[in-house]
Amino acid sequence: MKTPHEIVQLMLAADAFSQWMKIEVESLTRGSCTLACTINAEMLNGFHILHGGISYSLADSALAFASNSYGNQCVSIETSISHTKPARLGDTLRAICTELHRGKTIGIYEVKVINQAQQLVALFKGTVHISEKVW
Amino acid sequence: MKTPHEIVQLMLAADAFSQWMKIEVESLTRGSCTLACTINAEMLNGFHILHGGISYSLADSALAFASNSYGNQCVSIETSISHTKPARLGDTLRAICTELHRGKTIGIYEVKVINQAQQLVALFKGTVHISEKVW
Amino acid sequence: MKTPHEIVQLMLAADAFSQWMKIEVESLTRGSCTLACTINAEMLNGFHILHGGISYSLADSALAFASNSYGNQCVSIETSISHTKPARLGDTLRAICTELHRGKTIGIYEVKVINQAQQLVALFKGTVHISEKVW
Amino acid sequence: MKTPHEIVQLMLAADAFSQWMKIEVESLTRGSCTLACTINAEMLNGFHILHGGISYSLADSALAFASNSYGNQCVSIETSISHTKPARLGDTLRAICTELHRGKTIGIYEVKVINQAQQLVALFKGTVHISEKVW
Repeated sequence: MKTPHEIVQLMLAADAFSQWMKIEVESLTRGSCTLACTINAEMLNGFHILHGGISYSLADSALAFASNSYGNQCVSIETSISHTKPARLGDTLRAICTELHRGKTIGIYEVKVINQAQQLVALFKGTVHISEKVW
Repeated sequence: MKTPHEIVQLMLAADAFSQWMKIEVESLTRGSCTLACTINAEMLNGFHILHGGISYSLADSALAFASNSYGNQCVSIETSISHTKPARLGDTLRAICTELHRGKTIGIYEVKVINQAQQLVALFKGTVHISEKVW
Repeated sequence: MKTPHEIVQLMLAADAFSQWMKIEVESLTRGSCTLACTINAEMLNGFHILHGGISYSLADSALAFASNSYGNQCVSIETSISHTKPARLGDTLRAICTELHRGKTIGIYEVKVINQAQQLVALFKGTVHISEKVW
Repeated sequence: MKTPHEIVQLMLAADAFSQWMKIEVESLTRGSCTLACTINAEMLNGFHILHGGISYSLADSALAFASNSYGNQCVSIETSISHTKPARLGDTLRAICTELHRGKTIGIYEVKVINQAQQLVALFKGTVHISEKVW
């Protein structure tokens, strides 16, 4: 059976958009992970703050890595996100994913996206279906 | 008072990430809009399908344009998305935003993201706070 | 194979809380239904308006009936509700459930809860897992 | 300015449905609270397990008490709930509400509904608008 790092390696290797975002995996265990990403000019919206889609993408990747790291492939069913504070050019964001529930077929995860001052930028919740397919 | 097109023009003009996604506004009225975007190689994830963050970004932009087009500035409070079908390289996605509710301070919008075969790729719901600030 | 009405009959027969709410099934087809319920004094909260839990319960029952009526047992995975307008003693609410998506294993439904003046009282979205067990 | 207990006392005093559920306030501070409720026969659904609307109602009341206890009136904007484990006749449920975010106008709360064996029965998230009206 593959380790969490081997699984995430497989997921990241060909992941063009995560590479575009320059996502880094700072920590990883079964059911949790922390990702980091620094905001560049192409990630901003018309208000010169971070486009909400980037915080979502970072959180969604954290969900994928944390939930898949047990070895069974997990598919996102429903995700929600609240943007609580604007993030700006040059900020380094961290997405910290923790497991709220892991049943036989359903997993629920929370992701807190924080900036370098530990302020909450976005709050994300994701529900995944745990399939029988293994990595 | 500005027209919907003038407002969206202002929003899009400096929106670097929407420009990166090459988002096009196909239709726009107060409370609704349709955006289009074609999937390129940088938008894919490790499964060689569209990264969920891109469909989210497209839907989130549709929410912003439809809700702001009345003239009052609207801020996203909570958004949720379900990914119902994979999208692939070269697919053209459309995000169709419709208004479910518009009260004094809260608006609720649905966005259907469909592919060129009219198949549902993602279903998005967004809640915004309607501020007193005007465009 | 059982008809939608036979399935809902089975579900309602022993459903003590739906009986307490005096829920009536006004229409039912595979994937959709309309339920009605009149607000009594025990359903109110401290503001003398309907407790949000009752509109949720009505919408949740509509989700259950619409999604199960195909014949496969469906289990709720995640539900969300926004309360858009207060409902009052004596109001008759209708929960109108429509299908937004029905895949192999996941179904997504919207429920609009309206009052006798056709005003939107609550907006509900529910995601179910479609099991292989049949009614 | 009223204390959290005085505010919740006001909210509960005339709350017929919470009284029907026999909700008890076990602890309460600004931004958090724990409520308890024991499942009776009228709260069951057709599967002889707790109707999802009751766990929702309990969690929704916890959200209302925790968010209002600062002194400003708070109105629910959007709530979501996942039912993770069936609850049964005679079970005592506790709804534990904690604050995830409290900004100027928006608050986000999580409620864990657990049974007497500390198992997670439901996971609830609620977003409220903080008004300028005080209790």
